[in-house]
Amino acid sequence: MQLNIVKIGGPVVEDPQLLPGILKDFARLEGPKVLVHGGGKAASEVAKQLDVPVQMTNGRRITDTATLAIATMVYAGKINKEIVAQLQQYNCNAIGLSGADANVIRAKKRSPSPIDYGWVGDIEAVNTTVLNHFLNTLKLSPVCCALTHDKQGQLLNTNADSIAAALAIALQPHFDVRLLFCSDTHGVYADLSNPASLIPQLEHAHYKNLIERGVITAGMLPKLDNAFTALQQGVSSVAIGGPKSLSPNAKKTQLI
Amino acid sequence: MQLNIVKIGGPVVEDPQLLPGILKDFARLEGPKVLVHGGGKAASEVAKQLDVPVQMTNGRRITDTATLAIATMVYAGKINKEIVAQLQQYNCNAIGLSGADANVIRAKKRSPSPIDYGWVGDIEAVNTTVLNHFLNTLKLSPVCCALTHDKQGQLLNTNADSIAAALAIALQPHFDVRLLFCSDTHGVYADLSNPASLIPQLEHAHYKNLIERGVITAGMLPKLDNAFTALQQGVSSVAIGGPKSLSPNAKKTQLI
Repeated sequence: MQLNIVKIGGPVVEDPQLLPGILKDFARLEGPKVLVHGGGKAASEVAKQLDVPVQMTNGRRITDTATLAIATMVYAGKINKEIVAQLQQYNCNAIGLSGADANVIRAKKRSPSPIDYGWVGDIEAVNTTVLNHFLNTLKLSPVCCALTHDKQGQLLNTNADSIAAALAIALQPHFDVRLLFCSDTHGVYADLSNPASLIPQLEHAHYKNLIERGVITAGMLPKLDNAFTALQQGVSSVAIGGPKSLSPNAKKTQLI
Repeated sequence: MQLNIVKIGGPVVEDPQLLPGILKDFARLEGPKVLVHGGGKAASEVAKQLDVPVQMTNGRRITDTATLAIATMVYAGKINKEIVAQLQQYNCNAIGLSGADANVIRAKKRSPSPIDYGWVGDIEAVNTTVLNHFLNTLKLSPVCCALTHDKQGQLLNTNADSIAAALAIALQPHFDVRLLFCSDTHGVYADLSNPASLIPQLEHAHYKNLIERGVITAGMLPKLDNAFTALQQGVSSVAIGGPKSLSPNAKKTQLI
């Protein structure tokens, strides 16, 4: 059976013009489906309002205790529940989950050396038993936010692209998994300054070449690494698309 | 089969000295169980930090849009996920839920007249199918926060005592339901100034008499109304207890 896993990135999640359309498209998808969402920009805004400084090292955010509390409020609370309520309106029986809920995603706190990222987790295990039950028996659509836990009582901040890829890989023995990363870019471009240069099909060798030539930007690198890993580990279809990429015939970059 | 439904009130939820003990006691309860939690004090603190004024009418909070966003962040985000992560640590397979998740609790926005309480919902329907499945088949313990939805895309603030009572009433045809309201008071007192006057068994006529004599305080009234309604509608056991009332032989007030 086909399973759609759709990851929606921050710029889509936080744009009130874009979000309803993509949620409607998601609700219309037939069969089992999972939504994974980010929300870093909204978390940064709340951090600013609460006077919690955003700490960065090597261009990456450090999750201290105050930042984790904000991530938990914004990702698992506001964004997750508003998405779930909207999907319910569109007759999609959504259920919002952090990795702690039903022990869906267990992670391990990243080693503090060489760089201490704080309360950040790397995924160790996905509870496919409960996810299969939600998807097949209860016809629920999990909506997963970017939080995991260590099963020792600690919540951990975890990249939403990594969560989407880990869910796709864990569920591919059970489903024909189609993974779509949906953001404000419409895919991968051969020339960032030319919108017509969208690459419809991207091979791994071509991807490596684009990295060497500096065409792939820093923000796109981890997403594409996650995407190619998923493809190599048995996920049937992996694509990078824009806010309308759930519609048929939408432009996107299909990894091959 | 017995089902324990435990509601933990704000002062217990928000006291880091009390919460771990009560969560350990809850995790140790055998068989199916549901936790319902408040968190109004924490929400008020975040509201203060975010400069969102707390609006009251007739002593009750008004839930405007900004207040609902904070309630969603604090109830469904921070408090709910921290409780779930701690219960997972104690080997209780908890799953955090708002009423929107899996359409578990649908409510109707309260009429704006005579008093407009804003985004406040009165419960209309409990999804016992999915709750039975969680409890019986998946052995999950739902952790419910004080939010519902209207199935039209709108989240609604809903009193946690009302949620606990509604769940108990909806599930009583399927289980021998034991409902415990657990707060910082240890039960109902005949004389508020005398801790020795705790009433071990409270009849409805006695309760009405205590109201007439002004012994029942305003804060306790809706809780006891919810509690007696649950008892009258088939819930096997309803009690009001303190932070340690999940332990055997703890003092509490049993409604009869």
